[in-house]
Amino acid sequence: MTQEDKAKMFLEIHRNTFILPNAWDVASARIFEEEKFPAIATTSAGIAFSLGYRDGQRIPAEEMLAAVKRIARALQAPVTADVENGYGDAVVTARQVWEAGAVGINLEDVMGEGEPILVKPEQQAQTIRRIREAVPGLFVNARTDIFLLGIGDMATQKAQAIERLQAYRASGAQGLFAPGVKDAAVISELVSALDGAPLNILAGPGCPSLGEAKKLGVKRISVGSGPMRACLGLVTRIAQELQNSGTYQTITEGQYLYSEANRLLDRKL
Amino acid sequence: MTQEDKAKMFLEIHRNTFILPNAWDVASARIFEEEKFPAIATTSAGIAFSLGYRDGQRIPAEEMLAAVKRIARALQAPVTADVENGYGDAVVTARQVWEAGAVGINLEDVMGEGEPILVKPEQQAQTIRRIREAVPGLFVNARTDIFLLGIGDMATQKAQAIERLQAYRASGAQGLFAPGVKDAAVISELVSALDGAPLNILAGPGCPSLGEAKKLGVKRISVGSGPMRACLGLVTRIAQELQNSGTYQTITEGQYLYSEANRLLDRKL
Repeated sequence: MTQEDKAKMFLEIHRNTFILPNAWDVASARIFEEEKFPAIATTSAGIAFSLGYRDGQRIPAEEMLAAVKRIARALQAPVTADVENGYGDAVVTARQVWEAGAVGINLEDVMGEGEPILVKPEQQAQTIRRIREAVPGLFVNARTDIFLLGIGDMATQKAQAIERLQAYRASGAQGLFAPGVKDAAVISELVSALDGAPLNILAGPGCPSLGEAKKLGVKRISVGSGPMRACLGLVTRIAQELQNSGTYQTITEGQYLYSEANRLLDRKL
Repeated sequence: MTQEDKAKMFLEIHRNTFILPNAWDVASARIFEEEKFPAIATTSAGIAFSLGYRDGQRIPAEEMLAAVKRIARALQAPVTADVENGYGDAVVTARQVWEAGAVGINLEDVMGEGEPILVKPEQQAQTIRRIREAVPGLFVNARTDIFLLGIGDMATQKAQAIERLQAYRASGAQGLFAPGVKDAAVISELVSALDGAPLNILAGPGCPSLGEAKKLGVKRISVGSGPMRACLGLVTRIAQELQNSGTYQTITEGQYLYSEANRLLDRKL
């Protein structure tokens, strides 16, 4: 399958509601592929943590892109990459993501390494337009961080999010992402406001299940850094059992077999 | 603390019995450090899986060394690196491990990318001697794969393992590693045969706990790729829940918080 074929397939997937799991390394990506997800995303936070950076544009772009490339070249499924605010020149980054073998990006509308700074809607819309022109095959999932930032009441957040998502859609974004929104009524309003363009939500505690999200008209559900952080929770429990009782039960129960891990990673494309 | 100080500290740790947890990325290493392990090892299998290779000398040496460097530079604790059979020239690799900031290596006595081939004891002993001369500060933990290979009966394996471990010790290895041995009586015999040199065993199902291992005279207990493969097991259960019920319980229960992960990775040395 060529990269163009993968890109078309990825676009097609958005006709129906689907879960898009986020991987942070090749092993996690291969597991998601083996479990038959039609496409795999990366998690920029998970990759940053794994390589030694906190989230929020701290990781050098080249390290993020190298991780995306390792994952994309190891899978047959289409891969879409989380690239925060684009690491400076988002158009250059988008082209490099495509060259790394991925067929989509998530682009956030907050920038800055410390306190998040909202990018003006018209500026973000222009960046999206430039990316769509420069890398036409790439699926741009435009994200607004309005709900995650939580500034103002829900009515204000909703109005701002809709204004932004509509502007991003008008500038060519094929998908729209509103992480942090959980309320069914708000999700319904966003879906209506986008008039058929696929809405992406972030799974988490209190979020609609796949079945519920489908009824609300959501097309894509991401899991973000959730699975990676679930693993960090498990590593903590493993470490604490080793320290507290000097035993290995948390390591061995439900463990992926060594022989299976070799098989998982040995698969040729 | 200088690297020489870390190396001395790592040598000192071997006077008493301790668990040495194996990390495969910066996040797992930082968790082990936060849980107050006095030193951290890497797992070559876990790093290989994470970066897209099966175990057994498939990963290019430079990718393995880059992972060791990421981990070593992120920790205050001493780090020791799993480097399989040394990736060709084990002396060069040992020097690069030291340059990457680690203060120890594990060196296996099997080579080959397909069927494992045992290196002759005298050849392995000579390699150890050359490493000790070239990089005097580096703690060489010489491993025999006799038990893991499982060729012949236990008496034969034990005799071969003792012959090898004694030869490695005589050539300067500061630690001796016999993964795959679980039986208390065999462990006791190995400890006696090494006459005070620290014996390392690999934790796993049926292995003595820290308390039991201490009574047997074992000094160091590694966990190998166990914790990394426990995480792969968790990723599989997460993927299956997403596919089977479209829900996120396995992701959210026991999850490391996003804010905590940022704090964990943001720590300056």
